[in-house]
Amino acid sequence: MEEEVPQVQDVLAEAKPHLRQKDPQSGSGVMSRKLWLRPVDLPEENCVVLITFPKGTAEGFVEWLRRAVRDVHPDLTLQPKLMASAKCMSLKCSAPFTLMLKGAEELCLPKKLNAECGGGQWEFVMSHSHLFDGIENPDTFFTSEETGSIVRHLLYSVQASETSLKDPPECVSRLSLFVGEPILAKCLSEGLIDQIFPLHEGIALKALCKNWVKAFFHRQILHDVKDYFGVKIGFYFRWLGLYTMFLLGPSIVGTILLVIGMCGKENMVDMAFLFYALFNVIWTTVFLETWKRKSAELAFKWGTLDQRSGRLCQPRPQFTGEVRRSPITGQKERYYPAWKRNLIRFTITGPMIVAALALSILTNSAICKMEEHVGSIEGTWGQWFLHHLPKVGLGILIPVYDALYYYLAVWLNDFENYRTEEKYENHLIFKLVVFQFVNSFSSLFYVAFYQQDLGSLQAHLAALLITRQIVDNVKESALPYFLGQFKLSRLHLSLKALGSPSPSKEKKNILQENESRIQATGTEKSSEDGTAQPNKPPSGKALSNAELESSMTPYPGTFDDYLEMFIQFGYVTLFSAAFPLAGLCAFLNNIVEIRSDAFKLCYIIQRPFGERVRNIGTWQDCMELMGLVAIVVNVTLIGQMGPLHRLAPSLSQHHALLAVVVFEHLLLGLRWFLVRAIPDVPSWVKDEMARLEFHRREAFNRQSLLEEDKILVSSIPGKHLGIQNPDSEDTSSLPHPSGKGNNLN
Amino acid sequence: MEEEVPQVQDVLAEAKPHLRQKDPQSGSGVMSRKLWLRPVDLPEENCVVLITFPKGTAEGFVEWLRRAVRDVHPDLTLQPKLMASAKCMSLKCSAPFTLMLKGAEELCLPKKLNAECGGGQWEFVMSHSHLFDGIENPDTFFTSEETGSIVRHLLYSVQASETSLKDPPECVSRLSLFVGEPILAKCLSEGLIDQIFPLHEGIALKALCKNWVKAFFHRQILHDVKDYFGVKIGFYFRWLGLYTMFLLGPSIVGTILLVIGMCGKENMVDMAFLFYALFNVIWTTVFLETWKRKSAELAFKWGTLDQRSGRLCQPRPQFTGEVRRSPITGQKERYYPAWKRNLIRFTITGPMIVAALALSILTNSAICKMEEHVGSIEGTWGQWFLHHLPKVGLGILIPVYDALYYYLAVWLNDFENYRTEEKYENHLIFKLVVFQFVNSFSSLFYVAFYQQDLGSLQAHLAALLITRQIVDNVKESALPYFLGQFKLSRLHLSLKALGSPSPSKEKKNILQENESRIQATGTEKSSEDGTAQPNKPPSGKALSNAELESSMTPYPGTFDDYLEMFIQFGYVTLFSAAFPLAGLCAFLNNIVEIRSDAFKLCYIIQRPFGERVRNIGTWQDCMELMGLVAIVVNVTLIGQMGPLHRLAPSLSQHHALLAVVVFEHLLLGLRWFLVRAIPDVPSWVKDEMARLEFHRREAFNRQSLLEEDKILVSSIPGKHLGIQNPDSEDTSSLPHPSGKGNNLN
Repeated sequence: MEEEVPQVQDVLAEAKPHLRQKDPQSGSGVMSRKLWLRPVDLPEENCVVLITFPKGTAEGFVEWLRRAVRDVHPDLTLQPKLMASAKCMSLKCSAPFTLMLKGAEELCLPKKLNAECGGGQWEFVMSHSHLFDGIENPDTFFTSEETGSIVRHLLYSVQASETSLKDPPECVSRLSLFVGEPILAKCLSEGLIDQIFPLHEGIALKALCKNWVKAFFHRQILHDVKDYFGVKIGFYFRWLGLYTMFLLGPSIVGTILLVIGMCGKENMVDMAFLFYALFNVIWTTVFLETWKRKSAELAFKWGTLDQRSGRLCQPRPQFTGEVRRSPITGQKERYYPAWKRNLIRFTITGPMIVAALALSILTNSAICKMEEHVGSIEGTWGQWFLHHLPKVGLGILIPVYDALYYYLAVWLNDFENYRTEEKYENHLIFKLVVFQFVNSFSSLFYVAFYQQDLGSLQAHLAALLITRQIVDNVKESALPYFLGQFKLSRLHLSLKALGSPSPSKEKKNILQENESRIQATGTEKSSEDGTAQPNKPPSGKALSNAELESSMTPYPGTFDDYLEMFIQFGYVTLFSAAFPLAGLCAFLNNIVEIRSDAFKLCYIIQRPFGERVRNIGTWQDCMELMGLVAIVVNVTLIGQMGPLHRLAPSLSQHHALLAVVVFEHLLLGLRWFLVRAIPDVPSWVKDEMARLEFHRREAFNRQSLLEEDKILVSSIPGKHLGIQNPDSEDTSSLPHPSGKGNNLN
Repeated sequence: MEEEVPQVQDVLAEAKPHLRQKDPQSGSGVMSRKLWLRPVDLPEENCVVLITFPKGTAEGFVEWLRRAVRDVHPDLTLQPKLMASAKCMSLKCSAPFTLMLKGAEELCLPKKLNAECGGGQWEFVMSHSHLFDGIENPDTFFTSEETGSIVRHLLYSVQASETSLKDPPECVSRLSLFVGEPILAKCLSEGLIDQIFPLHEGIALKALCKNWVKAFFHRQILHDVKDYFGVKIGFYFRWLGLYTMFLLGPSIVGTILLVIGMCGKENMVDMAFLFYALFNVIWTTVFLETWKRKSAELAFKWGTLDQRSGRLCQPRPQFTGEVRRSPITGQKERYYPAWKRNLIRFTITGPMIVAALALSILTNSAICKMEEHVGSIEGTWGQWFLHHLPKVGLGILIPVYDALYYYLAVWLNDFENYRTEEKYENHLIFKLVVFQFVNSFSSLFYVAFYQQDLGSLQAHLAALLITRQIVDNVKESALPYFLGQFKLSRLHLSLKALGSPSPSKEKKNILQENESRIQATGTEKSSEDGTAQPNKPPSGKALSNAELESSMTPYPGTFDDYLEMFIQFGYVTLFSAAFPLAGLCAFLNNIVEIRSDAFKLCYIIQRPFGERVRNIGTWQDCMELMGLVAIVVNVTLIGQMGPLHRLAPSLSQHHALLAVVVFEHLLLGLRWFLVRAIPDVPSWVKDEMARLEFHRREAFNRQSLLEEDKILVSSIPGKHLGIQNPDSEDTSSLPHPSGKGNNLN
């Protein structure tokens, strides 16, 4: 983005009038001269990760941080930049390829081996880098997501040392850092750093927008999504795709059931009712088992099938605790005893969650009572309005409660102070799911089992399902979109106030701005291929990508997306027998959901760092539990709503109940059998894993043999002591790494 | 066993009169001279594994086999010996330490690392042998079980080659071996080899007998058991020990319940009944979860926690199929398509098992009908006799059916032709458990739910539990014991017929013989320590250990032991509410069972090869399923036998059923919660695993750094290409391995 480079100085100059006319190369103002030693014409694409600081951060702190990072990784590029619009400082970080390789090794990042070693993924090792596929091309060896993750790892692995703690700025000394503590994580959690996030990559993002977000009727290009956004988001979209595809089943069966219900005989309807319950169990189980297989397949393909112990992971940046010597690593670490956490869980979290649940149940039943009462009021239009008011009220109140409880759950979960990201997330999911379940389903349970009113249940279900989907979509896409636009206009205003030339495109909304950003980066890259394009006037792009992206909402994680789908899954499976169209509604919603979630990721929200997960975690358990509950609920519905009684009128109430219980146990047995009968890992994945292991062992043996040959040939005394690397010539095209990781040949 | 060496020749000479007076060193008779090139005064303790051939095996075949093995492992000792008593040939196999190390590497045998590497188990690698604990002492580095397993692996890894197939004896050419096929497995499955088994080790066995079999009131010394018999048997005894300890719970609670039942009020009895059902669920779940934790702990301690893919395992020797090129290894292998196996399973196995189940159910209900009929016959003593006849009949018929079905199941399982030992075993367990469940419990279900007669149920349970335990113990220990004695006397007779000097101890039973064998080996070893003992006259030990052990019953696996306990577990959990003393009966039985199973292993049965397993496999699943069924059965008993009705007489039948169903679901929920709440792997094991991984990584990094230093120091060009082994001096005490594995310094 060559045309932007002068603009950086422009913005800087505008923000700091005394620098305005100076040559930035010699600009010494308040910033130290050292800050400008790096070549300023570094293209912006080279900025992989952006660190932004809160407004009013002392420049001494930024300089100290840069020095601390440079002490550990001298090759890491940290280019300072003033974010004119937000009047805050930032550091643009990127790393040369050799440093990236070292980071990949430290991260135990799995990379594809070359064909000679049988292909397949293996943790990257620098000493055997020649065995990895594509190592000869530094531009493409790492995916866009991996590049960001490695740079983040390099930044996060910078620990406080004797030298960096010798003369720290005032704000740092307040942190009480100890030698060996990760600096950046601490600064981030203490608010000295505002955000750390990876910047978008023009060409790749443009391709994603074209072939994924807008390719409404095409398969998702999930490999590219994973390469760009990481494994966790890839998993989410694959899961959503599979779920949507599976929803075709209940959609079709439910529609047929509805047609039968409208024109069929009563006996047939009742039979169809029983059949649908059976179908439901099989469908849920087969879907969840299919996902398990798919999940194992993806984890294998994406190299996350076997992961390391969580106890060796870095703690969450927000994790606090006393400093002690770790019994595992022998190094200093923060430690928070499990008993304290358990105490909090039992004395604070438990009661508060129970209270929140009780409040939700009370509200729900109050609304239901109101509805009963309202139903008896006379009147024509007013009655219609009053009749639907409680349902709509419920549809609005539930998301409001959700949002409030969400903040409570996050606060409680933060308070419980989990060490690893994974544990933190699993406990948060559990907290949210319990409440969501009660909040979303208690009114339905009330109608179904207390009022025992099938018509009311159907009306409720339809209202909830549809209002919820509308509210969720507003909350998810429209709201952040308008918030983003609001922020953007504020940015423009502040730029104006600073006296920048008013950009012609100022009134463009953020989407158009992003669109043009994506276009610009794309065409720019392609212009490097030879077809030179005329430079656009700098006034046309008042905000750089970095500034634009730093003003976007940070990615909140896959929580909300999964939660939304989990509740929908509940509507479809729990009461499907009462409202057979639920499947179709969900199917139609999800067709749109896939692309709107994709749209959100690409256009509205800050790019997230990739996370390497092996499956969808607690969500799978939650959905399996939902499948179990669905059996009980559906069978109870059958027992209550009377199809059994109509089919066999001679049955006594007692025997009917007995029949229902037996039917339930048969369904539970069927589910158990299906879970057992479908293997969790596909046969071909097992074959492939065995093949890879065999080839790696073979390669190892081959190498050992070659070494022996070398030993026989060589006559230099002492040389037989080592394991020789026979393929070392292959890697001669590789740049020589600097620093400690010097065992690359 | 120096005094036995001349005897080997004696026996040989007696069996082959033309060799009688010859010097065995020059004996050329029919056996080629080469057979005798190995030193004959090899002490018998050095025989680790014994291969015996069927009577009348051509000596050419034995010679061919030896040559084939020697081609691959020239250092493997294969000492031929004629088993005089059985008139068959045998080979005594053992390996030198360096070959053992190579075998351990091929087996990926986990061994303990030294303290510098953080301890813990790691797969043995020859090139890093100096990092392993105790490597400096070849006598103790491998446990007794490992020695046997490694020698077996070395033997089984001998594959047919061009040379060995060039001019095979007639019996071999009938096998249609292909190049690369394991020879010994094929010969074993085709009956050319009679048995391959490890010989007992005197001192260790003696210690086990003293401190384990006879130490009735002491803790089991399971680490020694595992070192001697392998991980799988160690797991069984640990499981049995835990189960027996846990049985204390139902023993005590059941006894208290009985006392309440005898002297308490009816209301209290009913409450206790409900309480016992609840206790039962908690007890079962906690027991199974505790075992899971214990199992993970043992697997960690014993180095089997992470095992390799079954697809890389050698197939079972009995596995047959067409020869094809493996897609995994690219080598020739036998292949049996899955669809054929599935065809057999659905068209043959399925119907036959259903038929067997039907037969069992029919017989059981016929006996129950008879009992009903008999109960109405008048008479005093005759009535008593007739009254108990059906129960005793059932107690006898069930084991008979079991035995017949066992052969059917094994035959069917063989027919289904599973590739790996593990799959074979899991499917066999499944087949057996289904039948066992029906066969053992159908009469009880009949009495409990069809007749609904609590008194009769109690009588049935007591009769089954007690007769079963007696019959099982007879089948398990007494029967093989007498069979062994019978075999032994036949051996003595045949020796007599051959004209050997009639041994004075001929009338000793096999137990005494074994006892003296253990004593002899023990004292002999200790005599090596300095205190010389007068040599016993050779006539005092007419049979060598090898001959004695080869005549013993081969170890049938842990099947029967687990099966017995599984059924007992069913009696205790399923109907415990009806017969509260079941727990106590089982507890008393198991106290004896532990030692009688130990006795069987040490005295009666051929020593088995150790098997490396990670848990108790399908049995855990079976028992968890039993726990589920137990909830349903117990709750149904409560609903039927009326305690609920008596506690709340105002409840209608319908509401009572509803209450029972709700109670059942609460119990199921409780079980689900307990399973979730108790982590499967203890925290300390996770910590320890993380610590080990950390230390290994650290050691690796340290090594890399040292290498870099060496690179800087060394000035020999080209030397910087290799990974240098800095600790190579440490291994100078190690003997240099021969053969391919030459990367030991």
